[in-house]
Amino acid sequence: MKFDVLTLFPEMIQQACSHSIISRAVDKEIIRINTINPRDFSKDKHRKVDDTPFGGGAGMVLMCQPYFDAFDSIERDENTRVLLMSPQGRAFDQKMALELAQCEHVVLMCGHYEGFDERIKEYTHAEEVSIGDFVLTGGELPALCIIDSVSRNIDGCLGKIDSAHFDSFSDGLLEHPHYTKPREYVGMRVPDVLFEGNHAKINRWRRKQQLIVTKKKRPDLYAEFKKNCKDKEDLKLLNEVENENIDYN
Amino acid sequence: MKFDVLTLFPEMIQQACSHSIISRAVDKEIIRINTINPRDFSKDKHRKVDDTPFGGGAGMVLMCQPYFDAFDSIERDENTRVLLMSPQGRAFDQKMALELAQCEHVVLMCGHYEGFDERIKEYTHAEEVSIGDFVLTGGELPALCIIDSVSRNIDGCLGKIDSAHFDSFSDGLLEHPHYTKPREYVGMRVPDVLFEGNHAKINRWRRKQQLIVTKKKRPDLYAEFKKNCKDKEDLKLLNEVENENIDYN
Repeated sequence: MKFDVLTLFPEMIQQACSHSIISRAVDKEIIRINTINPRDFSKDKHRKVDDTPFGGGAGMVLMCQPYFDAFDSIERDENTRVLLMSPQGRAFDQKMALELAQCEHVVLMCGHYEGFDERIKEYTHAEEVSIGDFVLTGGELPALCIIDSVSRNIDGCLGKIDSAHFDSFSDGLLEHPHYTKPREYVGMRVPDVLFEGNHAKINRWRRKQQLIVTKKKRPDLYAEFKKNCKDKEDLKLLNEVENENIDYN
Repeated sequence: MKFDVLTLFPEMIQQACSHSIISRAVDKEIIRINTINPRDFSKDKHRKVDDTPFGGGAGMVLMCQPYFDAFDSIERDENTRVLLMSPQGRAFDQKMALELAQCEHVVLMCGHYEGFDERIKEYTHAEEVSIGDFVLTGGELPALCIIDSVSRNIDGCLGKIDSAHFDSFSDGLLEHPHYTKPREYVGMRVPDVLFEGNHAKINRWRRKQQLIVTKKKRPDLYAEFKKNCKDKEDLKLLNEVENENIDYN
């Protein structure tokens, strides 16, 4: 899988990808992360990439020429996915992460300052993608989020630890609570069920905790899960959760 | 404003904050970004911070001792906001960014691997915060998103350019399109209204574009805006948008 990142801050992308699991995936050649700086394509003698907005107003607007040319320098085929980071975009989620993990080539376009000249969006036919309803200084952090969440779903990325299957959202529910040693710390105890060695019971407890946590923190996901649930065991647990007096506040 | 970031990857935070607007805000002492590495607090001879989960399963769980002690090392008062990065958390949005921009001190707790021992959440009374419905390798990228979007709403951060007021979401709508020089590029033209020098007309065009863009890309936000709209001019434009044949696909 190759990521091409169009950015005015290539060092920011490269540095952030030099840690932890992403860095190991690059070393293992499972992913490649390439940066393209539109400034290198500017035909302006000062290597300018932005200018004042037509019609007036605050901020600067990224210009067509350097972005068109930088984009055209990327070798693409019909399977290339071109994403443009924008708070106006479609919400990036786990489903899209899994979908992109099947691609061979993803282009990530990062803006900065006031934003792109509208014609850049038209020219590249990019899909606008947003990581949330908040505004950032640039598209670099969203691009890094996408690289991270997509990569960890590519086979071999997480190695033997392979815990992506148990992630939140993987089956529409949030995760159950986790505990590790020691059994008691400053008076705070781990639930007994986790020591009794009964794995069926542990799995049942964890599944029920998933339902409880999701009902409490994400009633929208819980309602969706409940509506579509066909599994007998899950239906039994849902029934228990519905009929117990659990404090959801 | 001071950010304290609890992280096993302090260099990742420091590097990402060494670019662009965030770096300038640090230089101008508008914000301070401090990192605390729980590994430095580990009482284990190998500086271990994680262990296998009780009850079995994949992945590693972050241990109480190093996180409790790292957290306790941070000087806090009753106005400190403590946020824990988690896909289970409350959705971070522009409203929360504006709210946090009024704080003096924000603690950002980043997990890694499988996640935190549940007791860490209880001990710190942290608010769980999520930047979206996707799973990342660690909390560092979400913490950086929060630092960026909060900082740009602190007075002085964006300097004279001050364009935060015109950001998407700032009044519940997405932004209008932007254009800069040249007026025509490879056959793609900027809308004429932006050259006619009639600023009332330009503002009206831009506001209408905001409505059109929001209706097309975020019908949820558009419906909300329409419901609450009291402004006479906006109501007129809404009426126009509703009655025109605009292609929303």
